[in-house]
Amino acid sequence: MVESMSQAVTVFRLGHRPSRDKRVSTHLLLAARAFGAEKAYYTGTQDDSLEESIRKITQDWGGDFKLEYASGWKQVIGGWEGKVVHLTMYGIPFQDAVKEIRSDPSPKLVVVGGAKVPGEVYGASHWNVAVTGQPHSEVSALALFLHELYEGKELCLDFPGARLNVVPQAKGKRLQTHAKRV
Amino acid sequence: MVESMSQAVTVFRLGHRPSRDKRVSTHLLLAARAFGAEKAYYTGTQDDSLEESIRKITQDWGGDFKLEYASGWKQVIGGWEGKVVHLTMYGIPFQDAVKEIRSDPSPKLVVVGGAKVPGEVYGASHWNVAVTGQPHSEVSALALFLHELYEGKELCLDFPGARLNVVPQAKGKRLQTHAKRV
Repeated sequence: MVESMSQAVTVFRLGHRPSRDKRVSTHLLLAARAFGAEKAYYTGTQDDSLEESIRKITQDWGGDFKLEYASGWKQVIGGWEGKVVHLTMYGIPFQDAVKEIRSDPSPKLVVVGGAKVPGEVYGASHWNVAVTGQPHSEVSALALFLHELYEGKELCLDFPGARLNVVPQAKGKRLQTHAKRV
Repeated sequence: MVESMSQAVTVFRLGHRPSRDKRVSTHLLLAARAFGAEKAYYTGTQDDSLEESIRKITQDWGGDFKLEYASGWKQVIGGWEGKVVHLTMYGIPFQDAVKEIRSDPSPKLVVVGGAKVPGEVYGASHWNVAVTGQPHSEVSALALFLHELYEGKELCLDFPGARLNVVPQAKGKRLQTHAKRV
């Protein structure tokens, strides 16, 4: 098992709209956690139930992934001490940039768009990268980007303190529960 | 550009619920198309607006991805002439099975769960594979599975007949439109 990843990644979800985006934002944040990000910010409308879902998953499944609301994108990107990677279908193919991104040791803020991404975000990012130039999903884009950034090591990531864990099965389901966080 | 993928994949989305799943199912089906699947089935409640969204994307962005509703999972899995891969967090790590799956030349049905996956689906599948044992998203699970199945070749897939295509940019957005399907 891998304890934590060599590159520190924080994910930044822009423009969350609770009524429309609840499930997609939840999936995005869970993918961020599962694929090795340490933390996430989000802007848009603050959503207690989104925050509660993520907190509950982390409590049950381990690790210490954190989610924090921010009132505007400028304070997050402007205050970031490290490099900024913006995932956008309009960017350059991520496979052409990932080696350079990986070799840069500074913490990365991975920005993932919502409904309308302000034009300034493109200019404020060190890399604008596309996971294919086709329309699909911010969830698949983020997962693929982190998978290549971490070269697959994120698949063996350890989540300490879990109350629940899966015991892999060829057929059927097996879930282990622990009375206390282990 | 790669015209089409060596392994024929059809994605099967179980148990779509229009009120709850619309955006996640749309993202899942767009990820299926973008990462090289030829076709998808879905069960649950038939959803004209989901079908229309996917048809419109395919019309604009090219290729001939098809979506078809089926009234029950048994007719799709039971009638499938090929092998069945079920993506589930309870399965064996997909990275341990993907080489074997790739070397099998038969068409693959990749089953992606919805709310409640019937226990029989585990038994009816040739492989039950997990993209990490952590909770995240069917969208990220499918994208990662197809990416590894196709060894990254899906990132260069060609979508003939597109009306729209992105011209990759380091900063900003550039979209080309074609008067007719090219």
